[in-house]
Amino acid sequence: MWTDGRLCYGGDYNPEQWPAQVWAEDVALMRQARVNLVTVGVFAWSRLEPAPGRYTFDWLDQVLDLLHGGGIRVALATPTASPPPWFSAAHPDALPVTADGVRLHHGSRDTYCAAAPAYRAAARRIAGALADRYAHHPALAGWRVHNEYGTTCHCEHTATAFRRWLVARHGDLDSLNDAWVTSFWSQHYTDWAQISTPRATQYLANPGHLLDFRRFWSDTLRSAYAEQRDLLRAANPRLPVTTNFVLGDWVPVDHARWAAEVDLVAVDHYPSAVDIGAEEQTALVGDLARGWARHAATRGRDPAAAAGRGDAPAPAWLLMESAPNQIHTAGRMHTKEPGRMLRHSLAHVARGSHGAMFFQWRAPTGGAERFHSALVPHAGPDSRVFREAVELGAALHRLAEVRGTVEASVALAVDAASGWALRHPGLPSRRLDHHEEAAAAHRGLWHAGYGCDVVVPGDPLDGYRLLVLPALYLTDDTTAGWIHDYVHGGGHLLATYLSGVADEHARVRLGGYPGALRDVLGVRAEEFHPLADEEQVTLADGGTGRIWAETLRPAGAQVVTAYAGGLLDGRPAVTRHRYGAGTAWYLSTRPDEHTYRRLLADAARAAGVRPVCVGAPDGVEAVRRRAGQHSWLFLLNHTDRAQRVAARGVELLTAATVDQVVALPPGGVAVLREHTG
Amino acid sequence: MWTDGRLCYGGDYNPEQWPAQVWAEDVALMRQARVNLVTVGVFAWSRLEPAPGRYTFDWLDQVLDLLHGGGIRVALATPTASPPPWFSAAHPDALPVTADGVRLHHGSRDTYCAAAPAYRAAARRIAGALADRYAHHPALAGWRVHNEYGTTCHCEHTATAFRRWLVARHGDLDSLNDAWVTSFWSQHYTDWAQISTPRATQYLANPGHLLDFRRFWSDTLRSAYAEQRDLLRAANPRLPVTTNFVLGDWVPVDHARWAAEVDLVAVDHYPSAVDIGAEEQTALVGDLARGWARHAATRGRDPAAAAGRGDAPAPAWLLMESAPNQIHTAGRMHTKEPGRMLRHSLAHVARGSHGAMFFQWRAPTGGAERFHSALVPHAGPDSRVFREAVELGAALHRLAEVRGTVEASVALAVDAASGWALRHPGLPSRRLDHHEEAAAAHRGLWHAGYGCDVVVPGDPLDGYRLLVLPALYLTDDTTAGWIHDYVHGGGHLLATYLSGVADEHARVRLGGYPGALRDVLGVRAEEFHPLADEEQVTLADGGTGRIWAETLRPAGAQVVTAYAGGLLDGRPAVTRHRYGAGTAWYLSTRPDEHTYRRLLADAARAAGVRPVCVGAPDGVEAVRRRAGQHSWLFLLNHTDRAQRVAARGVELLTAATVDQVVALPPGGVAVLREHTG
Amino acid sequence: MWTDGRLCYGGDYNPEQWPAQVWAEDVALMRQARVNLVTVGVFAWSRLEPAPGRYTFDWLDQVLDLLHGGGIRVALATPTASPPPWFSAAHPDALPVTADGVRLHHGSRDTYCAAAPAYRAAARRIAGALADRYAHHPALAGWRVHNEYGTTCHCEHTATAFRRWLVARHGDLDSLNDAWVTSFWSQHYTDWAQISTPRATQYLANPGHLLDFRRFWSDTLRSAYAEQRDLLRAANPRLPVTTNFVLGDWVPVDHARWAAEVDLVAVDHYPSAVDIGAEEQTALVGDLARGWARHAATRGRDPAAAAGRGDAPAPAWLLMESAPNQIHTAGRMHTKEPGRMLRHSLAHVARGSHGAMFFQWRAPTGGAERFHSALVPHAGPDSRVFREAVELGAALHRLAEVRGTVEASVALAVDAASGWALRHPGLPSRRLDHHEEAAAAHRGLWHAGYGCDVVVPGDPLDGYRLLVLPALYLTDDTTAGWIHDYVHGGGHLLATYLSGVADEHARVRLGGYPGALRDVLGVRAEEFHPLADEEQVTLADGGTGRIWAETLRPAGAQVVTAYAGGLLDGRPAVTRHRYGAGTAWYLSTRPDEHTYRRLLADAARAAGVRPVCVGAPDGVEAVRRRAGQHSWLFLLNHTDRAQRVAARGVELLTAATVDQVVALPPGGVAVLREHTG
Repeated sequence: MWTDGRLCYGGDYNPEQWPAQVWAEDVALMRQARVNLVTVGVFAWSRLEPAPGRYTFDWLDQVLDLLHGGGIRVALATPTASPPPWFSAAHPDALPVTADGVRLHHGSRDTYCAAAPAYRAAARRIAGALADRYAHHPALAGWRVHNEYGTTCHCEHTATAFRRWLVARHGDLDSLNDAWVTSFWSQHYTDWAQISTPRATQYLANPGHLLDFRRFWSDTLRSAYAEQRDLLRAANPRLPVTTNFVLGDWVPVDHARWAAEVDLVAVDHYPSAVDIGAEEQTALVGDLARGWARHAATRGRDPAAAAGRGDAPAPAWLLMESAPNQIHTAGRMHTKEPGRMLRHSLAHVARGSHGAMFFQWRAPTGGAERFHSALVPHAGPDSRVFREAVELGAALHRLAEVRGTVEASVALAVDAASGWALRHPGLPSRRLDHHEEAAAAHRGLWHAGYGCDVVVPGDPLDGYRLLVLPALYLTDDTTAGWIHDYVHGGGHLLATYLSGVADEHARVRLGGYPGALRDVLGVRAEEFHPLADEEQVTLADGGTGRIWAETLRPAGAQVVTAYAGGLLDGRPAVTRHRYGAGTAWYLSTRPDEHTYRRLLADAARAAGVRPVCVGAPDGVEAVRRRAGQHSWLFLLNHTDRAQRVAARGVELLTAATVDQVVALPPGGVAVLREHTG
Repeated sequence: MWTDGRLCYGGDYNPEQWPAQVWAEDVALMRQARVNLVTVGVFAWSRLEPAPGRYTFDWLDQVLDLLHGGGIRVALATPTASPPPWFSAAHPDALPVTADGVRLHHGSRDTYCAAAPAYRAAARRIAGALADRYAHHPALAGWRVHNEYGTTCHCEHTATAFRRWLVARHGDLDSLNDAWVTSFWSQHYTDWAQISTPRATQYLANPGHLLDFRRFWSDTLRSAYAEQRDLLRAANPRLPVTTNFVLGDWVPVDHARWAAEVDLVAVDHYPSAVDIGAEEQTALVGDLARGWARHAATRGRDPAAAAGRGDAPAPAWLLMESAPNQIHTAGRMHTKEPGRMLRHSLAHVARGSHGAMFFQWRAPTGGAERFHSALVPHAGPDSRVFREAVELGAALHRLAEVRGTVEASVALAVDAASGWALRHPGLPSRRLDHHEEAAAAHRGLWHAGYGCDVVVPGDPLDGYRLLVLPALYLTDDTTAGWIHDYVHGGGHLLATYLSGVADEHARVRLGGYPGALRDVLGVRAEEFHPLADEEQVTLADGGTGRIWAETLRPAGAQVVTAYAGGLLDGRPAVTRHRYGAGTAWYLSTRPDEHTYRRLLADAARAAGVRPVCVGAPDGVEAVRRRAGQHSWLFLLNHTDRAQRVAARGVELLTAATVDQVVALPPGGVAVLREHTG
Repeated sequence: MWTDGRLCYGGDYNPEQWPAQVWAEDVALMRQARVNLVTVGVFAWSRLEPAPGRYTFDWLDQVLDLLHGGGIRVALATPTASPPPWFSAAHPDALPVTADGVRLHHGSRDTYCAAAPAYRAAARRIAGALADRYAHHPALAGWRVHNEYGTTCHCEHTATAFRRWLVARHGDLDSLNDAWVTSFWSQHYTDWAQISTPRATQYLANPGHLLDFRRFWSDTLRSAYAEQRDLLRAANPRLPVTTNFVLGDWVPVDHARWAAEVDLVAVDHYPSAVDIGAEEQTALVGDLARGWARHAATRGRDPAAAAGRGDAPAPAWLLMESAPNQIHTAGRMHTKEPGRMLRHSLAHVARGSHGAMFFQWRAPTGGAERFHSALVPHAGPDSRVFREAVELGAALHRLAEVRGTVEASVALAVDAASGWALRHPGLPSRRLDHHEEAAAAHRGLWHAGYGCDVVVPGDPLDGYRLLVLPALYLTDDTTAGWIHDYVHGGGHLLATYLSGVADEHARVRLGGYPGALRDVLGVRAEEFHPLADEEQVTLADGGTGRIWAETLRPAGAQVVTAYAGGLLDGRPAVTRHRYGAGTAWYLSTRPDEHTYRRLLADAARAAGVRPVCVGAPDGVEAVRRRAGQHSWLFLLNHTDRAQRVAARGVELLTAATVDQVVALPPGGVAVLREHTG
């Protein structure tokens, strides 16, 4: 239902910020830009329910009718990410509390605690009222619940809910005490009531406590979502429901576990780097979203969008928000260069997104995000940004035929809980970061031209020739078995330092690192050597390592390259182990980008993995989608030089036939319907 | 009344910190240094009212008599900046609260909330008691209320007062909702009681909310001042009343709006730079104070000190506090080089200060500021500092004749609210700073040798040939008209980036930047290009720009210089527009200091502005004061080399006649009564 | 009782973290490593008293019997550093509160307020129960109370106790007001109830208030210790009692004043530098501990361990905790190089430690410190770390004969209160640090090869030829007399800037710096010149100075070297003054390390101080212990090159006879029983 054969194009539309006379111009401009889907109502709670139980739907009726009349479909949002002032005034206990015990106030967005009963009741009420009124409105393509679940709280409601969750997870206190190793520092709990959320405390907190709180909170937010979804589904079972995921290390959500709850994985993506890093991040996020989409519910989705690999249809997902014209960095907004909006959008489509959506349609005069970029900027439609928006609409229109799977035979395992656990205090280094480790591996694969799927531990691995584990710190016995079976059965594995070290409760496995993976990798490490910020180790093959090193001994593995000089001189740095019918590589340090790329290429070659487009120069991204006999090759030139790539087919944006070579101007894009056979 | 024909010299005198036997030595040393005015009682509340309603004035009687006997006049302070411990113990609700909700404790100074009724009552009581007893004491030159109003608070008293203020400002909630654009993020208020001060919240705060809170708080502090002033005036209408303004970006006070409430603008100035930056800051502060003084009340002032320009008497102001021997930087106190105290003092006198006052007279043995410099340091009068204090007293004595206006035909617009608004979150860059932008323009003018008055939007501009708008972000329609009329009528304007972009509620003006000034400037910008911290853009004329750039299109303006290289290659960077009978320049980036100076000189030259003293080398500050037919030229050599400046007249410090050239030793100063005609 | 003729070897043993079947392996491995002392029960409160008043001692009975059976002695700990969850749940008022008023929660260790009556009662109860059951257990070598006293609190219990302490210290409010100079900023107290702990306040806090709070809190923690000690002593007067001191600028404890309360000074040492700085810190900590040990109670100690100098037995102390294999830095754990654990351990033994103890015996799988190094690491006994632990046990066994005093004729004065006072706000520089100043002097002495004792003001100085005062900021009249008498009687003194400046209440002494020491040093300074972070001053002798400079005038002293260039060009930087029969040097800046070493060597030479081992190269630490006719020379090669040192005797680790030269391999150690005569 989300899609109707076209790629989605549009974004967040907030008519409540504008007088009604602007709405007609909006629809006209949307049509000019070929916008076909807009999200309405995200932050409109105070306009929809100006007092408890009193609804003012007439303006929304008018907007939906207007859009429908213009042929523009609507993802109708529930506005629960920003309760109105009257709600906070009536329910101060539903305002969030920090770990220090500071109760936050109204005056921004997300000023609620997702565990507060009053908030949950109010959220259900407004969602239900919207469902009652609009579930059968012809403009609706689906529902978008809430916005970017990602807050946290330490109030008493949260503490109560946490205790309830812990009872369900651990059953009895003995199990909890054992899982959290409360024998350390005299933390043995004898009553569930003694457990609070991990509030500010005197010194280092308990890692098991921290990890379970993260898991609990992800589940709590998920249940807040699910109860809205159930209401919406009940009103019209044919309309799909989703929520837009937001990315970032601070987000307390395990998206992979959430994906089963949504009918379409929707992702907001705002890169943080301004250079090629923005494109590297874009590629990773596309692969992450596609990986999550494999777990998405199938209700209400296009038949063509069911999960699967090989010749099965590609999992469906959608880039729900991105910034038309800015890259937000810590200190300032970087204006995107001409053409970059298109290139970022097509990079997502290449990776399976059903289109490209933006925040937001029209830049407001006020509010905290008044300078966030928009498809219609403050300057109005007579602007480069809007002209590029029109071009993008045309380009997406020409790519409507693209569908199917994304070519990839490398799998990269990403695990939210490992990410959380490596943020705990008391680790050997503060520089450990599962997600950055995953990103480093993904950058290596991306620059080397390999297609890559993101998986979570336990996902089926048929068809993948190489599995990469980037600091997969938490490795429970099931995951260890999953890895063992894959390699033993002939798979190739590349694991980096700290993988396998801890169990699901973040308890260190004894007997030598990397705990659960010693056998598969054929190595044993006695000691870690975390490196200082600027410190490097030298490798015998000329490369360097950062962040980490280890005192590693082979236990069956061959040495691929050794440390050179220093305390570890001559000891193994990278190893390779034949195990069963497979091969397992181990990186005990983080190689520099060049060395990492080379090692990944060696591992890929040994595994029989080929680049998507042999001969594509570095900086030209090549992604292939395939559906049955058909295939499409995306070529995105991220460099500021003209590039040539050998390829054949029909270039869809220009309708030109390519016989031998595609010529890409600086920053240019080509999408080829390839000749089959 | 503040002045008696002599320039004021002295400082804060705190006899309550010393046994009575020291007081006689104090008066003797003051006479030795020609001190003629001291501020008494600033932090003496706990000594004057040791218990509620019980007063111990005998020691103050004795001190005032002693000073009066020594011919030293007194600015008697109300001590309300530091309530005694008994007050805080009795009224914990009057202690200030942070945005996080933390209630601060007693144990420092300024431990009160200016909106707390108990505090206001106690402040009126002690001020009234002082007025009753001393309003007719012959030692009194005037009253100094409080000290450096500059705290803030988020308690319930403040929230109540804020709501009351909002009702008065906006009238109804529809207007407030419109002004604050509460349609963004569902912040529509339906009851005044829903509005709190901008407390800590989940994410970015509302810019309108933040801006109004700043305005409200400035007004609240002003009313706290005014109610004391009214009591003091009632007791003796002939005595002038003021309070000492403190400068700094953190100060929540709009001094220009306050100035109408004081009988004399009094300013505390502590530069933060240790190099020539200290002198640049000193010059700017002198010009700011003089600008505010134009708005000061006339009650009780010298007839010769009424506001005005041209041949009218110069507005009166006084440097009320400065540090004898230190520049306070973030990490340490920098000891002033010999002669620098004199040079800083005369730089203020040159800019219109009625003298030079210091904090404090004698360095205490304890208390938080025990190492703050003093005219009598820990080492005692046998010290360089005290010897320089004696020399300064003699110098000020010789300059008693100096009076009149300060020569300036450039006006620099500074606007507190624009400063506040550019501190909001969600702006395109965190590096935006109205005050630093004003300082950059002022530095350029200062180094190029142009006299400059600081104005606030709406001030009369007759007589000014060049008006500079440094990131005048908030430009309401009245201000836009003021600018338009000035240029249209023949004035020259130089505006920098972000001027005119928003209205008085910080709402962005639509249709292209710089909103309100597109017509006058003859340009239209579609997009901003905020620059990274170390990033520079190159200009075609060889200069560079920092902080900011824009996609600018001329709409009538000529290109003065263009961007060279990069994304903006060839686009206008600096423009000039003939508009009506005037000319309007626009700077879309912050030029490097050299380029900025050159551009300002070009604009000044085109406007017919001449330097104060043609031929004075860079680093030699030249300021001219004028009264009727008389004029005085101040020459301050801030370099460490001897300098020569062509000038004629009588040098007042040495009584030497200068025929052709003044020879200034390194760090030296000359003040010439110029030959008329 | 702590020692039985052998050097202590072992560490914290936490059997409660492991199933009982591991305990037997523990004892076997301990015996293999010659471990002879373990601390048991430190964090076992929740296991010993799982509910209020209900004790589960059976497991501890079993552990103590097992250890006793294995010949391993036990320092039995009271577990009061980590109350169980049930305690915090029952007594939330006993949880600590920050200066901001945030009440911290359970979930770490040290989650108590030492002034809370409920906590104190619970601590006495568990300590009493342990004393009742184990005071006569044959395994016990002594008691270790608590762990690393070092928390702070601002709750109401603390405020009440603070007021009580202030009454005892100051007697009446007039004295307190005078001591704190409350005349500054109107802080005059008229009722004790007005005084709180130094909570968060609006601006700078009162220095006298801050200083007394630090003193009070050190006394409060001490009394918490003493009441446990008294209970334990009462149960068995023959068993010694101590607590382990933790070092660090944040620790609110005056260890020198505490030492009289312990029967043996026990010190935990974790260096923070990874290079030679770790060894410099180790040497300083050994000298500090020995200095404190001079003040330790004599109850229960070996007769051979009474305090004293010259030929008297050396004061006894013990390195109670150190890290087997890691140096903890701000961002990561640095793995110790092979041999460094031995070298650090013997550096402590050389300085008088009765052995070397570690935290902890076996690395746990969980808890906040799961990656803290251990004698038995995660990898198990088949590891370099455990093998080095076995070697260390053997080495300590061979050194059992070593005893007696440590050769030193330089005294370095360290004063906790000066350290606290130089952390106050409002000082001329934020870079002032008494402890770092002491460390800089100690580094100079260490590299130059001089033995050094740490003293506190008032300690007897007989036998010391040179006394060093490193920024001894607080100098009361008694201390001034102590310094005067020492120099006047022929002693040599070297004092650095800021010494003598303030009195015991941190009130600045008037008339010129350095206040109390102007006469002895023969100098007077009028002004300070704090230097910026990267700023240096040049000295006429080619050296440089950092942090600080002064306008210094000789008043009897000779100039050793002057400032060169800049504002202070030609003025004295370092002076020397003959005073009575002695000599007093003054350093008005912090010399670079090389210059400092040279100045210290000049002063030492003039004072007749000789290096411990003439000819030992830099980086080879030489320490001599002496007992009657016997002497032992420790030589520790901290360099990565082989070194040769002229010496004679029997090398105890190898039992080899050395005739002329000891050859030390890189990182190697030798301990010679020297030929007498």
